[in-house]
Amino acid sequence: MIPSLIAAISAALLTLPAQAQFAKPEDAIHYRKASMNVLATHFFRLATMVNGRVPYDAKVAVANADIVMKMSKLPWPAFGAGTDKGETRTRPSVWTQPAKFKDLSDKMVTQVAALDAAAKTGDLDKLKVAFRATAGTCQSCHDVFRNN
Amino acid sequence: MIPSLIAAISAALLTLPAQAQFAKPEDAIHYRKASMNVLATHFFRLATMVNGRVPYDAKVAVANADIVMKMSKLPWPAFGAGTDKGETRTRPSVWTQPAKFKDLSDKMVTQVAALDAAAKTGDLDKLKVAFRATAGTCQSCHDVFRNN
Repeated sequence: MIPSLIAAISAALLTLPAQAQFAKPEDAIHYRKASMNVLATHFFRLATMVNGRVPYDAKVAVANADIVMKMSKLPWPAFGAGTDKGETRTRPSVWTQPAKFKDLSDKMVTQVAALDAAAKTGDLDKLKVAFRATAGTCQSCHDVFRNN
Repeated sequence: MIPSLIAAISAALLTLPAQAQFAKPEDAIHYRKASMNVLATHFFRLATMVNGRVPYDAKVAVANADIVMKMSKLPWPAFGAGTDKGETRTRPSVWTQPAKFKDLSDKMVTQVAALDAAAKTGDLDKLKVAFRATAGTCQSCHDVFRNN
């Protein structure tokens, strides 16, 4: 017997603290990893064009950059209190250096917006420059805040 | 020593079959679960308003519906050949009944667009109706194609 989705949602709602973004810390961890996975998948598709592995297609580049941009804004509220333990590679530095974490994540979000704009120009050279700059912002943040 | 992200991307590109959307079947499985997780998280936030668990905020509803809509389009190319095995609850029926899978997933995508439009009206009653219809399309597809 398959439980009704509506019933499952209603049951889950009962456990949700008012105004909480996530019912449980592990839900937040799962979500931030999920949004990063979607981001990385579409960033990787841009990489295939930037590196000449597949032919450049401006429309495909725009579609992928759009998803990267949407995803870039999502993970940050999911690094709340209590989400430092569990199935995560996030380092404690996220919580001990919150200003630096905010600064580096903001830089990524800003640079991804520039990547999106570059994709929309239809100019592969501009996309290449913006792609590499974006990868640099990912790397800068991972270097300090994520275990590899 | 942390490997460079650019180097990691370059290495991964070497293993990617030309034109392939995913380097490995498990990447496709991971991605479709990730996009569904992001979708479900934001759908659940709409649920909190539809069920009166948190106060209705039209702007928040629009933002969440927008992400649900973007995510609704993503998982389908990730149900390709070879992705029936592994860490997945997807049933073999996805590959034995492809027309039905396409029909039910298309219905979800169409209904999610209606949900997005309903959110933009700013009318909670319209959002409630569209939310329940959308949950119904999720359920119809999960009943046939996903193990619980």
